[in-house]
Amino acid sequence: MSATPVLVIHGGAGTISRAVFTPDKLLEYSQALRSVLLAGYSALLRGESALESAVRAVSAFEDCPLFNAGRGSVYTRQGTHEMDASLMDGASRAAGAVASVTNVKNPIQAARAVMEHSPHVLMVGQGAEAFLRERGIAFAPDEYFHTDFRLAQLKAVQAQAANQVSLDHDADPRQGPPAGTDKMAFSGGTGKMGTVGAVALDKKGRLAAATSTGGMTNKLPGRVGDSPIIGAGCYADDLTAISCTGTGEAFMRLCLARDLSLRMRYLGEDLEQAGQACLEALGELGGTGGFIALDRQGRAILPFNTEGMYRGLARSADDLQVAVHKENRALA
Amino acid sequence: MSATPVLVIHGGAGTISRAVFTPDKLLEYSQALRSVLLAGYSALLRGESALESAVRAVSAFEDCPLFNAGRGSVYTRQGTHEMDASLMDGASRAAGAVASVTNVKNPIQAARAVMEHSPHVLMVGQGAEAFLRERGIAFAPDEYFHTDFRLAQLKAVQAQAANQVSLDHDADPRQGPPAGTDKMAFSGGTGKMGTVGAVALDKKGRLAAATSTGGMTNKLPGRVGDSPIIGAGCYADDLTAISCTGTGEAFMRLCLARDLSLRMRYLGEDLEQAGQACLEALGELGGTGGFIALDRQGRAILPFNTEGMYRGLARSADDLQVAVHKENRALA
Repeated sequence: MSATPVLVIHGGAGTISRAVFTPDKLLEYSQALRSVLLAGYSALLRGESALESAVRAVSAFEDCPLFNAGRGSVYTRQGTHEMDASLMDGASRAAGAVASVTNVKNPIQAARAVMEHSPHVLMVGQGAEAFLRERGIAFAPDEYFHTDFRLAQLKAVQAQAANQVSLDHDADPRQGPPAGTDKMAFSGGTGKMGTVGAVALDKKGRLAAATSTGGMTNKLPGRVGDSPIIGAGCYADDLTAISCTGTGEAFMRLCLARDLSLRMRYLGEDLEQAGQACLEALGELGGTGGFIALDRQGRAILPFNTEGMYRGLARSADDLQVAVHKENRALA
Repeated sequence: MSATPVLVIHGGAGTISRAVFTPDKLLEYSQALRSVLLAGYSALLRGESALESAVRAVSAFEDCPLFNAGRGSVYTRQGTHEMDASLMDGASRAAGAVASVTNVKNPIQAARAVMEHSPHVLMVGQGAEAFLRERGIAFAPDEYFHTDFRLAQLKAVQAQAANQVSLDHDADPRQGPPAGTDKMAFSGGTGKMGTVGAVALDKKGRLAAATSTGGMTNKLPGRVGDSPIIGAGCYADDLTAISCTGTGEAFMRLCLARDLSLRMRYLGEDLEQAGQACLEALGELGGTGGFIALDRQGRAILPFNTEGMYRGLARSADDLQVAVHKENRALA
């Protein structure tokens, strides 16, 4: 039996202000989303695996400076870039991830190297980088990751932080990031936070998920969110594949990605019901964001509780659907 | 309503060879386990929280050179010590973790600092260390973490690895660690792998879980297992608290700790049933190890699929139960 391949992508969820997000910007982002869909969906049409498709889509995101992953990663408090990524193959439940790596051109390909060429699931920091260099994974110099608008974001967030809130404060751990910071997310269509991801269903009916991020602007070096955590920001098995974006800490405490799959498995919920329940659980914990998910029949959901989420869906070569704001047409 | 407090601890699961594990060693380990129980249970009797008790028990493990956490941490391939720890408060579902940190005297207290004094859940590597130094967390010099028998383990594993298997090989990602290495675990009552953990129920009926490890002897620097991953090696909510030990990669791919809680929540299984199902799922994925868990009625399970697991349970001041091998009495 040959399934119709499906690819769903997201480029981050947040407050995408209509006031600053001009029609020009919408056009630019829509075009970028279509390029990502094309990169991943053409692989599926050629009969490649869901895993390969998800890696290609996320690599395309990482190569595009508009999104907070790879080249377009945000700056840490110290002006560095620390990136996280993970992926999971639903058929084998093999998984790989990297966290807090610097100068890695395509973190999602690094995650794949951990999965395929080590006995491990997660490698972090300099140890991960040493392993990746041995494996011949591509690195890029600091300048590659420099973008003027990300640096401007860092300065804006630091100025705001100095006025309003210290990231060192004794925060209530049940809260997400400090108040006020989310408001800046995506102003001007750019992301203070943000994550990219892809979920794919291939012709053989296999599912895969991939997630990649540069983290939060002005984050403490060493902070790791949900993106590289299997079961939090990424999961795939024989029932579903999911990739998340938003306030990572809430996704981690819920193990949201794994929860979606277990709701379907244990409660018999369909993808729609399970997704709705997970979004509600996220909100109850004070989390904001969204996720994309596919089931093995190719049904897709793209829920979020923010103003917008960069997203796209492809079910056939001649229909690459993309959307940004909530009011845009529902992709299905 | 005042609940009877309960504390369950583990000091790692593996092949604890009876041939090498002499009665003297059994006595030594049993005494150490009782000391850990005492440290955590006395806090519960005084009315302190489940979280405080779990942190005290795990800190006692970390201070004891017999167990693979804190002071007794194993050596990485490069002769360094990289430690991971996590904890979760069931009542608030607040969580904190550190991964790949060096020279931190009590990693579980570092995890608690991340939970209580940052908006984050997980911090790794040098970034985490900088944050911890700012917070006044205790560090210790390299010599503090030096133990002759761990260094001998490193040399033995490296000699074996040179003969038998390269950790750089293109491993089947569905496998755990390379064949042969698990056989060495705990020979002589010492651990090549191994993790420590505690789960507690306090007088107010709150649950908490804590997990800490030095990882695997001869591990690639940067490798992170399940111990610092909320939902994999540690989880707590209003139904259960769980801490895991074993081949971390399998626990991560299953999100085993979160799975236990969701089996109870979604399937209505009791702790015993959920624990049995999780142990079976672990075995199906080729994973070895075990876990300890409590429910809010104070029922305890301590299942494992290895030859032994260092473990202990306290339900009253005059009955600190400990066991090592499978044939020992069942703790309950």
